[in-house]
Amino acid sequence: MTPVEQGPVLFEHAAIIGFGNLGSSVARALRKSAAVGSLTASDLSADVLSRAKTLDLAERYETDPATAVQGADLVVICSPISSYAAILDAIGPTLTEGAIVTDIGSVKRVVADIAEGRIPEGVRFVPGHPIAGSEKSGPEFGHEDLFDGRYWILTPGETTDRDAVERLTVLWGRCGAIVEEMAVDYHDKVLAMTSHLPHLIAYSIVGTAFDLQSSEQRDVIRFSAGGFRDFTRLAGSDPIMWRDVFLNNKEAVLEMLQRFGEDLSLLQRAIRWDDGDTLEKFFRETREVRRGVVEAKQDKPYPGADGD
Amino acid sequence: MTPVEQGPVLFEHAAIIGFGNLGSSVARALRKSAAVGSLTASDLSADVLSRAKTLDLAERYETDPATAVQGADLVVICSPISSYAAILDAIGPTLTEGAIVTDIGSVKRVVADIAEGRIPEGVRFVPGHPIAGSEKSGPEFGHEDLFDGRYWILTPGETTDRDAVERLTVLWGRCGAIVEEMAVDYHDKVLAMTSHLPHLIAYSIVGTAFDLQSSEQRDVIRFSAGGFRDFTRLAGSDPIMWRDVFLNNKEAVLEMLQRFGEDLSLLQRAIRWDDGDTLEKFFRETREVRRGVVEAKQDKPYPGADGD
Repeated sequence: MTPVEQGPVLFEHAAIIGFGNLGSSVARALRKSAAVGSLTASDLSADVLSRAKTLDLAERYETDPATAVQGADLVVICSPISSYAAILDAIGPTLTEGAIVTDIGSVKRVVADIAEGRIPEGVRFVPGHPIAGSEKSGPEFGHEDLFDGRYWILTPGETTDRDAVERLTVLWGRCGAIVEEMAVDYHDKVLAMTSHLPHLIAYSIVGTAFDLQSSEQRDVIRFSAGGFRDFTRLAGSDPIMWRDVFLNNKEAVLEMLQRFGEDLSLLQRAIRWDDGDTLEKFFRETREVRRGVVEAKQDKPYPGADGD
Repeated sequence: MTPVEQGPVLFEHAAIIGFGNLGSSVARALRKSAAVGSLTASDLSADVLSRAKTLDLAERYETDPATAVQGADLVVICSPISSYAAILDAIGPTLTEGAIVTDIGSVKRVVADIAEGRIPEGVRFVPGHPIAGSEKSGPEFGHEDLFDGRYWILTPGETTDRDAVERLTVLWGRCGAIVEEMAVDYHDKVLAMTSHLPHLIAYSIVGTAFDLQSSEQRDVIRFSAGGFRDFTRLAGSDPIMWRDVFLNNKEAVLEMLQRFGEDLSLLQRAIRWDDGDTLEKFFRETREVRRGVVEAKQDKPYPGADGD
């Protein structure tokens, strides 16, 4: 646990729309940072909200997002991307003049497109994406240290209010994150490689195991510690969130998938033709990439992640 | 750390041939179990042996395997599979009558074939495979608790000495492992799915990242915490060991790769045609598999693993 830099209250009142694992982590991190005066938790599910209430994660709880954002100078959308249009349409009329609206969605071009025309004049929208999360759904699995030492990317456009970008940079920094700005399309391309393709492949290989006969499937699970285990964590991630990611970053994901297929064919061919030299050379190169990840200190698990 | 059951010394003297991460872990676990009187560490690399000596992991150190096995009633081969034939040929003449020889190789049909005709009369050979390991090479990265709660598979054939199988079952149990017997071809098939295919895919996807322009590659590493990180751990594994695994379990790996390719094509097609229902259904099923892994308690990291 890194001690969080203390400082003044940066926002009087924050509303968090979508209160699953990530929304609850944002709430916890904001509380810990003492950068926000008070919090409203909002989720369409009354059950989720009542669980959040039991955990005492906010000052107010509202199922209706339009009510939730009233009086908020900060609104953080933490729901699946397929819900964004409806949420922005609903909160538009009740947003406070001067409020900053941001989000945590994994794909940013589509978010910029959805926000276009849906943010009322006088309200500032800044698309954002923290590179952190865990495969467990629900507010009880959030963690105040989830963003500690992780990157939090902002993808402002040419017309985005600079003051809003700077205030969010300070805010998420107070929550422990390393905040960086990035061009929206470059974000979607890099994330297709670092996050979307790995999840797609993990879902696929776990699906392959699911198709085996039940006796073999049981043994695959029992002996999963040999490597398969690492994939099941990713493949245990929220189905709705990931469906939305793939549908909304289609081009970049399909391009990375194409490149991946070519590399896999190379290895497949080497195995078929007993070409040990090609395999060994390939494996030596990938070891260098691992070294880079360890050196960049991005090899540590998230707090609260399932042992991985 | 599970307390290890104490008991009598089961073997007077053990020789461990190949003293990398896994060989050193076997030595450490045997020491902790107090089931072996004394240990000889053997490795073709004088450098590896001198590092093992600095760590005081054995009573004797020998680069020559034929010398190392003299007087040993237990020999554990912990080197890559491509070295097995030469090692067995070398130690054949110096093995002690009644000794038990076993190994830790990830593929078992080929090991049985190599051992055939190379084990002298009066010596008992039992192929084995602990489902545990880490991506870091070298004796300094071994861990005495590596086998704690992990499966250790033995694949005896019809002519394998039953007394030897039972003694190894007790021995590895004393090292914390859950020891199970399995038919050799079934082992190779299940492991192709749980370990070999995941490693191949991890190597492949990390290779795809390696091919990107260097600026993008740097960002892929920096933002690896979104999922890519989980693959780099596997892709950082020993190149020689894994080259040998793929060359020696070719048919099973190619079959699983074929099935994986079919599943991946299904997902690829669903993305291309905006078929969210297929994606969501697929992702819900894989979540069940993750639940199975967590329930089987195989979701915890290895001691000494790089934060994963």
